[in-house]
Amino acid sequence: MSYLLRMPLTTATLEGPKRRIHYVGLETISEPVKPHLNLLEQFMQGQVDDFERETRELVAYCLKNSGKRIRPILVFYSGWTDSQTVSADLVKAAAVIEFVHLATLVHDDILDEASLRHNESTVSEKFGPGIAVLLGDALFSQALKLASEFPTVDVCQAVSKSTRRVCAGEIGQSFERGNTAIAVEDYYHIINYKTAELFYVSCHLGAKLAGYDKDYIEVAGKFGRSLGIAYQIFDDIADFIGQEARIGKTLGTDVASGKFTLPLILLLRKLSRLEGKELVRSFHNGKPADIKGLNRLMSAKGIFSQVRQCFMEEIEAAEKALVSYTEYPPANYLLGISSYVKGQMEKFVWP
Amino acid sequence: MSYLLRMPLTTATLEGPKRRIHYVGLETISEPVKPHLNLLEQFMQGQVDDFERETRELVAYCLKNSGKRIRPILVFYSGWTDSQTVSADLVKAAAVIEFVHLATLVHDDILDEASLRHNESTVSEKFGPGIAVLLGDALFSQALKLASEFPTVDVCQAVSKSTRRVCAGEIGQSFERGNTAIAVEDYYHIINYKTAELFYVSCHLGAKLAGYDKDYIEVAGKFGRSLGIAYQIFDDIADFIGQEARIGKTLGTDVASGKFTLPLILLLRKLSRLEGKELVRSFHNGKPADIKGLNRLMSAKGIFSQVRQCFMEEIEAAEKALVSYTEYPPANYLLGISSYVKGQMEKFVWP
Repeated sequence: MSYLLRMPLTTATLEGPKRRIHYVGLETISEPVKPHLNLLEQFMQGQVDDFERETRELVAYCLKNSGKRIRPILVFYSGWTDSQTVSADLVKAAAVIEFVHLATLVHDDILDEASLRHNESTVSEKFGPGIAVLLGDALFSQALKLASEFPTVDVCQAVSKSTRRVCAGEIGQSFERGNTAIAVEDYYHIINYKTAELFYVSCHLGAKLAGYDKDYIEVAGKFGRSLGIAYQIFDDIADFIGQEARIGKTLGTDVASGKFTLPLILLLRKLSRLEGKELVRSFHNGKPADIKGLNRLMSAKGIFSQVRQCFMEEIEAAEKALVSYTEYPPANYLLGISSYVKGQMEKFVWP
Repeated sequence: MSYLLRMPLTTATLEGPKRRIHYVGLETISEPVKPHLNLLEQFMQGQVDDFERETRELVAYCLKNSGKRIRPILVFYSGWTDSQTVSADLVKAAAVIEFVHLATLVHDDILDEASLRHNESTVSEKFGPGIAVLLGDALFSQALKLASEFPTVDVCQAVSKSTRRVCAGEIGQSFERGNTAIAVEDYYHIINYKTAELFYVSCHLGAKLAGYDKDYIEVAGKFGRSLGIAYQIFDDIADFIGQEARIGKTLGTDVASGKFTLPLILLLRKLSRLEGKELVRSFHNGKPADIKGLNRLMSAKGIFSQVRQCFMEEIEAAEKALVSYTEYPPANYLLGISSYVKGQMEKFVWP
């Protein structure tokens, strides 16, 4: 589960024992698409009755505590026109992608044996992993059924291919679990599939369904892909230096579960074979790693600034993609999202 | 996993300690579609490389020990014309449905904690349930990606809706696990979704893609649905009176896992409340139930003939659907399949 998606929509005040931080939520950037998001909500709730009766309660449960709809926001902004009416096609495409996303969350929670999501029991926890497998499948099916309601096969084609890639990313990640020798390129390969692919297809479909030209459609997709990679790097660093109260999970869970993400991969490259072995051995005692000590080590080795640089490269790639399209109606909105993500990264209290 | 699908394609001799049984496999009825099935095999094997590299080995593993392709056979026969060339559309549609079917098997094996399929380790057993969840998802995605290669959205629409229903059937079955009060109608409702739906869509798409008229397409679908229900009733009775060597699994596994299928549902209706309670209590000791004793009781209460009657009603409904279409090229082939399934039912040694 991603950090950003857990953030409240409103500007919020978070009180911790030592500091009081004001931060701006997604509200500012999502304000212009409020009517779109409301229609999306209605549309998705309306889908519950389209499911067979044995599935409805489960779907309703999933929809009750929704995320922050970052992928739909990308659909709406990539396909932004100055029209006053909300395009029904964009709402439907956003729902397609959000159902795929929901399905992957339901399945991810089985793999991660996660018990909580948005402070509610996960489907796997509440109804059992077997039901969670089947519900995820039903949500996938519904996504593709909605995709097939478009007049041409384009949406089906794009979404089914992206979904397959998301699975490939997750499979790659599972196979790499516990592999201390995982290369930086493999990390990028995995997050490109597991996260950036849905960001890509959100922007691609938004632009396409709004009737924009081929070049811009491609550019929007590029923007989405780079933003998705940046977003995942951000999420991975949050596992080390986020605030537990805000991200709503124990820090270091990736490490504890054998997921070696960018900070750790970069750190291992800076350690001697022996030091690396010792560090990894300390993770393998079944308890969560000593995050504070680990963070001190990372800081000393310059890992955090390296990760920030990787993050910034992707943000800049995303922004650069749009450089020839600043006159297009979507451009400023999309840049607003990338600058929002950048802002979240800057809010970290770096060790 | 279904009984029929485990049967060898060739006429085989099965030697047991006490009896020597000759039985005719699917070969006789599948002879005319051999070129189709060969092309399907090539096509599906050719799909392996279309998956991302992290998924390929897993897909190849799934395809190594394939079932008997009963759903593809239905596609080919429902869309049978007297043309000498095999329709590429039918091959692709058959692959779509078979990939969906494969995905459901991979996921079913997680739910059933099954370790063997076709005498090989299940994906869940060999690679872990997490990988099995993701691989099933990738297979679903590939099915829909192939479906989206047709010029219109019809195939996507039909397949995604059917897939959702299959999930609903499985969800219903999971929720009913251990419910001794499950009604006969609920049983039919579940098997209609979990099994008959893919039989239906196989016949529906076969007929449609071959260019047949609307009325026949509907009739072919009806045939498939009734055949699917009969097939599941057959599979459920096999759990009680099949021969372990042939069905390749321990008898009574449905009972042991709390799946109350038609024979047991009908039996419970004939017992007093107290008798029923006692019987069910005997299943709940964690060990497989005493199948022989149970079969004697079923026989005494006339359950087997009742189940056979239910089975025959569906076979007859399937055959009756085709009554006005005997001049159509597919009719005789489809009737060959229903009569093959009927023949398998007749081969049981009834207690």
